[in-house]
Amino acid sequence: MSILINASALPNIPWEPRPKTDRGSSPLWRYSGNPVIPRDLTAHSNSIFNSAVVPFKGGFAGVFRCDDTSRRMNIHAGTSANGINWSIENNPIDFIKCRDDQPDSEYKYDPRVVFVDDKWYVIWCNGYKGPCIGLGYTDDFKKFYMMENVTMPFNRNGVLFPRKINGRYAMLTRPSDSGHTPFGDIIYSESPDLEFWGRHRHVMSPAHFSQSAWQCTKVGAGPAPIETSEGWLLFYHGVLTSCNGFVYSFGAALLDLDKPWQVIARSRPYMIAPQESYELCGDVPNVAFPCAALADGATGRLAIYYGCADTVTSLAFGMVDEVADFITRNAL
Amino acid sequence: MSILINASALPNIPWEPRPKTDRGSSPLWRYSGNPVIPRDLTAHSNSIFNSAVVPFKGGFAGVFRCDDTSRRMNIHAGTSANGINWSIENNPIDFIKCRDDQPDSEYKYDPRVVFVDDKWYVIWCNGYKGPCIGLGYTDDFKKFYMMENVTMPFNRNGVLFPRKINGRYAMLTRPSDSGHTPFGDIIYSESPDLEFWGRHRHVMSPAHFSQSAWQCTKVGAGPAPIETSEGWLLFYHGVLTSCNGFVYSFGAALLDLDKPWQVIARSRPYMIAPQESYELCGDVPNVAFPCAALADGATGRLAIYYGCADTVTSLAFGMVDEVADFITRNAL
Amino acid sequence: MSILINASALPNIPWEPRPKTDRGSSPLWRYSGNPVIPRDLTAHSNSIFNSAVVPFKGGFAGVFRCDDTSRRMNIHAGTSANGINWSIENNPIDFIKCRDDQPDSEYKYDPRVVFVDDKWYVIWCNGYKGPCIGLGYTDDFKKFYMMENVTMPFNRNGVLFPRKINGRYAMLTRPSDSGHTPFGDIIYSESPDLEFWGRHRHVMSPAHFSQSAWQCTKVGAGPAPIETSEGWLLFYHGVLTSCNGFVYSFGAALLDLDKPWQVIARSRPYMIAPQESYELCGDVPNVAFPCAALADGATGRLAIYYGCADTVTSLAFGMVDEVADFITRNAL
Amino acid sequence: MSILINASALPNIPWEPRPKTDRGSSPLWRYSGNPVIPRDLTAHSNSIFNSAVVPFKGGFAGVFRCDDTSRRMNIHAGTSANGINWSIENNPIDFIKCRDDQPDSEYKYDPRVVFVDDKWYVIWCNGYKGPCIGLGYTDDFKKFYMMENVTMPFNRNGVLFPRKINGRYAMLTRPSDSGHTPFGDIIYSESPDLEFWGRHRHVMSPAHFSQSAWQCTKVGAGPAPIETSEGWLLFYHGVLTSCNGFVYSFGAALLDLDKPWQVIARSRPYMIAPQESYELCGDVPNVAFPCAALADGATGRLAIYYGCADTVTSLAFGMVDEVADFITRNAL
Amino acid sequence: MSILINASALPNIPWEPRPKTDRGSSPLWRYSGNPVIPRDLTAHSNSIFNSAVVPFKGGFAGVFRCDDTSRRMNIHAGTSANGINWSIENNPIDFIKCRDDQPDSEYKYDPRVVFVDDKWYVIWCNGYKGPCIGLGYTDDFKKFYMMENVTMPFNRNGVLFPRKINGRYAMLTRPSDSGHTPFGDIIYSESPDLEFWGRHRHVMSPAHFSQSAWQCTKVGAGPAPIETSEGWLLFYHGVLTSCNGFVYSFGAALLDLDKPWQVIARSRPYMIAPQESYELCGDVPNVAFPCAALADGATGRLAIYYGCADTVTSLAFGMVDEVADFITRNAL
Amino acid sequence: MSILINASALPNIPWEPRPKTDRGSSPLWRYSGNPVIPRDLTAHSNSIFNSAVVPFKGGFAGVFRCDDTSRRMNIHAGTSANGINWSIENNPIDFIKCRDDQPDSEYKYDPRVVFVDDKWYVIWCNGYKGPCIGLGYTDDFKKFYMMENVTMPFNRNGVLFPRKINGRYAMLTRPSDSGHTPFGDIIYSESPDLEFWGRHRHVMSPAHFSQSAWQCTKVGAGPAPIETSEGWLLFYHGVLTSCNGFVYSFGAALLDLDKPWQVIARSRPYMIAPQESYELCGDVPNVAFPCAALADGATGRLAIYYGCADTVTSLAFGMVDEVADFITRNAL
Repeated sequence: MSILINASALPNIPWEPRPKTDRGSSPLWRYSGNPVIPRDLTAHSNSIFNSAVVPFKGGFAGVFRCDDTSRRMNIHAGTSANGINWSIENNPIDFIKCRDDQPDSEYKYDPRVVFVDDKWYVIWCNGYKGPCIGLGYTDDFKKFYMMENVTMPFNRNGVLFPRKINGRYAMLTRPSDSGHTPFGDIIYSESPDLEFWGRHRHVMSPAHFSQSAWQCTKVGAGPAPIETSEGWLLFYHGVLTSCNGFVYSFGAALLDLDKPWQVIARSRPYMIAPQESYELCGDVPNVAFPCAALADGATGRLAIYYGCADTVTSLAFGMVDEVADFITRNAL
Repeated sequence: MSILINASALPNIPWEPRPKTDRGSSPLWRYSGNPVIPRDLTAHSNSIFNSAVVPFKGGFAGVFRCDDTSRRMNIHAGTSANGINWSIENNPIDFIKCRDDQPDSEYKYDPRVVFVDDKWYVIWCNGYKGPCIGLGYTDDFKKFYMMENVTMPFNRNGVLFPRKINGRYAMLTRPSDSGHTPFGDIIYSESPDLEFWGRHRHVMSPAHFSQSAWQCTKVGAGPAPIETSEGWLLFYHGVLTSCNGFVYSFGAALLDLDKPWQVIARSRPYMIAPQESYELCGDVPNVAFPCAALADGATGRLAIYYGCADTVTSLAFGMVDEVADFITRNAL
Repeated sequence: MSILINASALPNIPWEPRPKTDRGSSPLWRYSGNPVIPRDLTAHSNSIFNSAVVPFKGGFAGVFRCDDTSRRMNIHAGTSANGINWSIENNPIDFIKCRDDQPDSEYKYDPRVVFVDDKWYVIWCNGYKGPCIGLGYTDDFKKFYMMENVTMPFNRNGVLFPRKINGRYAMLTRPSDSGHTPFGDIIYSESPDLEFWGRHRHVMSPAHFSQSAWQCTKVGAGPAPIETSEGWLLFYHGVLTSCNGFVYSFGAALLDLDKPWQVIARSRPYMIAPQESYELCGDVPNVAFPCAALADGATGRLAIYYGCADTVTSLAFGMVDEVADFITRNAL
Repeated sequence: MSILINASALPNIPWEPRPKTDRGSSPLWRYSGNPVIPRDLTAHSNSIFNSAVVPFKGGFAGVFRCDDTSRRMNIHAGTSANGINWSIENNPIDFIKCRDDQPDSEYKYDPRVVFVDDKWYVIWCNGYKGPCIGLGYTDDFKKFYMMENVTMPFNRNGVLFPRKINGRYAMLTRPSDSGHTPFGDIIYSESPDLEFWGRHRHVMSPAHFSQSAWQCTKVGAGPAPIETSEGWLLFYHGVLTSCNGFVYSFGAALLDLDKPWQVIARSRPYMIAPQESYELCGDVPNVAFPCAALADGATGRLAIYYGCADTVTSLAFGMVDEVADFITRNAL
Repeated sequence: MSILINASALPNIPWEPRPKTDRGSSPLWRYSGNPVIPRDLTAHSNSIFNSAVVPFKGGFAGVFRCDDTSRRMNIHAGTSANGINWSIENNPIDFIKCRDDQPDSEYKYDPRVVFVDDKWYVIWCNGYKGPCIGLGYTDDFKKFYMMENVTMPFNRNGVLFPRKINGRYAMLTRPSDSGHTPFGDIIYSESPDLEFWGRHRHVMSPAHFSQSAWQCTKVGAGPAPIETSEGWLLFYHGVLTSCNGFVYSFGAALLDLDKPWQVIARSRPYMIAPQESYELCGDVPNVAFPCAALADGATGRLAIYYGCADTVTSLAFGMVDEVADFITRNAL
Repeated sequence: MSILINASALPNIPWEPRPKTDRGSSPLWRYSGNPVIPRDLTAHSNSIFNSAVVPFKGGFAGVFRCDDTSRRMNIHAGTSANGINWSIENNPIDFIKCRDDQPDSEYKYDPRVVFVDDKWYVIWCNGYKGPCIGLGYTDDFKKFYMMENVTMPFNRNGVLFPRKINGRYAMLTRPSDSGHTPFGDIIYSESPDLEFWGRHRHVMSPAHFSQSAWQCTKVGAGPAPIETSEGWLLFYHGVLTSCNGFVYSFGAALLDLDKPWQVIARSRPYMIAPQESYELCGDVPNVAFPCAALADGATGRLAIYYGCADTVTSLAFGMVDEVADFITRNAL
């Protein structure tokens, strides 16, 4: 049975039991109050989605992708007492550059937040001559510092691991192209210092469409990997290409704790696919895209935040042991 | 006036009269209880659509396209007392090969079922080095036998005629390419034995977009042709390409009884186009795709099963004489 | 403060005050009774959208894009007492050619209507060897005359100015290609006689996606420009390309009164983007496309008619001074 | 028999009789000294092609497309005593704007020159927010004046008729898109003053590939039409799309003298297709593209200048009566 | 060692020994007199290539793809005493339909000829609502009869086996799409009577580009398979997609004599790739495409006719045992 | 005047003076004996091009891209006494991995070689889940060691600087996509140890096509930068997209010695574009692609090796001061 490792108790994790009517085909279920963050929560937001939430000082803090009504993409800080009702800043985070000569950012989107060593690191898709992976940190969710970009363009879906592995920082990314990339594998990279990166290793490719079509066009890491007794639990999104465009769903994989580029098992079925109206309709129809997960070390409860239709943010719940078990029993 | 030929009485055909508020621009109308088959009827179904229903032993039986939560495509057997409430097998049909050396099937979708001579034949889009047309049969909807594929790849939308024509089995198909084919004509083929096929004849092409845009990208046969005094009544889908992808609607044509590759008339307007929420939203937005039709020889009633948004299955109703009349008066 | 010029009082302009709950991020708000024109208002309409409305004889008249159930595109005349409840002709306008040797029209769509000098001019996208700009006029919305096409193919979104500028008729168009054009700038042209056109000037291009993504693929003029003390007020649509197709929103610009090809200011944020269900779902999801605006010279009230999802027609309201002010304060 | 109309004697027209070994399948034959203009004739030319030549003061003058070694496209003036050996200016033509507020030109290419009324008019593809048709004139091939662009973007292959028709100036163009346009018809337009244009009429479309594949992708006017007793003789290029790109060949058509948008006959076979090494290899392989034709009114001799592989310029010869006869006998 | 089976002696097979300077990296070598058939051999040919040659009455006969100067594709009969100097009919073959109601042919190209039982069968790519496989026969290369098409569209590169296999006629084809197909596998089909076809079996797919890039886009059968002691020797073309288009080369495979859909071995290296000027330059650059092979049962000599740059026809030579040995030693 | 820095005398550098007939539009000229390396120099080579040459032990050594007759891409070692006549190994370099757990390489192409500190480093495009940048070294051109890949996929055209800059190793690369990438900028990256890389800086983008069309699609570094008194001299290739595919030419830039991501000047004209038959025709027509440059510190002579038509290797010559001067006087 899978047990969370290095996970504190989080008694106030957002939670709701599985509905009685649920047929049980997935280890996850949706929150009945979805979406939890509406598109117009801030003064000028067009949409709030693909956002990162962490426990912070007894409540919750987060970094949120807010596209404004010019459809400019940026990331904003926010806080919540219960993880469900949020207060998000009207203005984007105003990062302080660690060094003066760092390049500017044309846009920022799809942040993840993870605590490593002693800081909250924010990692996002950063606009510098194309999408690449930006990195920054904060101690208080008020002052944010921006470090060097951790990759060249073209890259998206960068995710840090919550601790060093084999003495080095570790990261997953998804190399891309300059547009709506129709391919995408997950790659693992290491760094001694979070600035210089190497030892790139391939982690996973899309599946064959006859085996698992929801993830047959591209795959990308979702929330930061969660350490369990069975391996790193990685929720990841997959994309199917219908005649009417991309469909984003998500499932999960277990990665080797010491060699995270080795996939122990990976779910053939999706866990959440766009089926509710707030997932089917919006700025980009048919998108369910996870960027953050809370875990309660005491109970194994998981609360996953995922963007819906590139418009709003929702919550799904599950138990870590059931998720891990599902992956193993339904491995690709 | 068009009369059904070779059609038994089917007193328990699903039925509901045309709503009083209907403006009458189509000879068909939707069932008020749509969709009749929800996406999650079986234990692991992601969606149930593009499926075939026939009268069977006083009730109804069918073969259903069920994509599972891995988005694998397969076909399942099911039964119903009234044609509306269905019981569908959790597992796909486990076909018995007629000969050992027949090729395997990577996936199966979009079945049609038709009774010819003495058996129920199932014909579907079969995965063998690309989509081609698979053929099988059953006597009881429990044991199913798989014959040789009736075409090479790349082909879709194969439909058998319900009787031999000029001494040979007859079939319609729509030659395709390896992807989301942006073209498609209907072709007629003959066979002495259901195994070897030839004498291919062109039946119909897409219409010019300024004449009938709903069918200007591609067209494909729907349910098995229905024999009437005016010719074979063929419901068929047509596709329009908007800037946001394919839109699938359907209309109908009358084909010559003896030379079915000759089109007597073909409806310029669609009969059903995606306009209800269950047709507009789902795994593939904007799809209405018919695969089966029941006919009551006593009254001329028709009940058409059509897939909606590649997600659920719905019913539409009409009278055979009104449909035939509509085609003739609104011919392309 | 922006004041309407050359605008009569229009006391019966459709109107509804801004909802109290509106967060105020746009100078426009939607009518609570949207959509005002349903898709099936005429006997054979598939959809009614992208249509033009003007004050006429104490009430309102209009020219409406009605696609029929063959998905043929044409324009129909209609009248209304209040601008909200409409009576639209079942048959398309039967234009009388001004000269016998004028070319025929394969289809007509997206009309605008504007009063210049002494007539109501109708300008639309006309099918003549591809989409080009057709022109006609009426005195009574009963008899319509068709003049020479004002451009060659390939062009769309032609809009006349409501008066001569510098002694010549003036027009905006958006040169296109033969399909779902993925580019598009607005061009200004002049004519001494409405038949021969020249002195083409570039007006505006799409914005860079990092500045104003809703208008980064193409832009096109909407309603006929409205004369104000701050310049010509031009509502225009912009298009974003998501991985699931085009998204049509709209904002507005102010053009120099004497040299209308010079943009004084142009809104970085959109004013209306597809967010309501009737804008998100329909024949073409995610479209808000304005083609007409009423202005009340007495109060500065504006009522904008816009097509929704290429399916129905809706209304939005605003005050001319607030709109102009918004453009200036939120200029690209 | 076809006779040149309004054509002066041109005794020094470049000329060479048809080679004895020629099998006679075309009414044209190549000059044995081809190419007549090498790619590096000027100090910085990368290539000289698609250029226009006219008789001038007892010798010849011309306007030449010279791409420089930055691959910038521009047009240069040149002179020749014999039409074969050329002296071309190192610098592009420095046009004087007719009015100050005319738009600038980003680039110029593919000029044609024609004498109308009392001036030499130069018409070319002009860069103004995309390719459109630029117009200018000269009296002496030293000073050149630039008028208003005669079309909006996107247009290419503009050609003036050598005299007014029905009291108006007349022009052929080929509406295009913003890239390597995969479609293209020839359109006729009229103007009272060379500045404002209208009365657009369709002239010809590409042929069906099973009838005349060399012209099945697009067609465009070549040299200015030549007046003959049988109609306007229009050499035009056609394009075929092979799996390795576009192939440009040319043939000819006869247009009605009074209604030039009416095609009397049009050659099914090409007259020159890329078959010599200087046509097959170069900056753009497989291009033969005519832009100018000299005609000797005394003998009916024709000398056609055509660009080869977008790199050099060559000459082909023919007799006007044989060309007209060939078109009629081999009409599409 | 591979020995020809069922092959008569052909003492006058065209032949030339391998050049001394040949480095021996391929079992084939080119004829020094290439190309043997020039593009303009007939009165109106634009090109003569992808053609089929067989021994006939002590000399040679053939069916030739001749595109005319309208670039219409058709097939012509021809004869030769020595297989090198050819006389080809100016007019296409005028096929007599076997039955009146057979469909017409829009175009014909890429013929193969093979003697089965008692007739010379011609099989080609036939234009009937897209490219499909046409079949005919002749006894004398004067009168030709056309049978039913053996496939639906879209198909190309149909090749008959020279004898029945397991009691049925056998054929290879390459299913295609409606354009310049970027994919293509070889499929085997059987028929009791040459009219009705079934039992389709997959033979071979393109190779992975890192293993054998010359055949990584598509593969298609070339000449009719040659029976040898090691299996059916099948020369086949493969296509690589460079940034400048398709490159056609050819190699060979050995197929099981009784189950020809089973590949015994297949050459990883090409045998002939476009490297000579007549292969690199022409209507379609970089094409070497074999359609016929002569075999001398007495010596094992092979003479292969292949189209060059879709323009001319050339010859390559080899010894059957060396070819078979090369395949085995250099198998993919 | 530009002077080579850190460059030893290289008296035996291949050399030939500029031809007298050269018009002088470029600072480079071609060797009269081009191509210097034929396509078939080794036993199984299909082509030898895009290769790297360095002075070695009084003569020259190199690493050569040799595609074999299976069109597999790999790199081979070779030596030459004079830099013109080469002896190249028949087998690819058999790299020894520095660590066992390094990933394998699917293919290798387009090597550059540069001496840094004390070793010859080889850097190439490496196949690991797509093209990325591989790195290795040798002391003797016999034993070669392979290090970690220096980038993730997708990347091409990696080039090391010949010395550390600001205490770190420095590299240029061109991020790409998974196919024939239609975009491409040059990026600068740093590393403390050649294994972990960061501090990515943008160096240059393609030019606007109206300014310098030969480099308007993508640009990529060529030979290792050459240190001069005016800055790093970087020869780089640029790509133009014609209607018939990509055209590869090359020019040069000067980069700041300390901040090499800052471009001092960059040539608007190309220096070599494909114009000779061996550059125009071959496996990929119209390619001139430099990968190596020799420099003679005593005289300022440069000898540049460049691949031609992806088939053979040629030489061009120039003087460093003339090249630098040309860049400055013809800067983009």
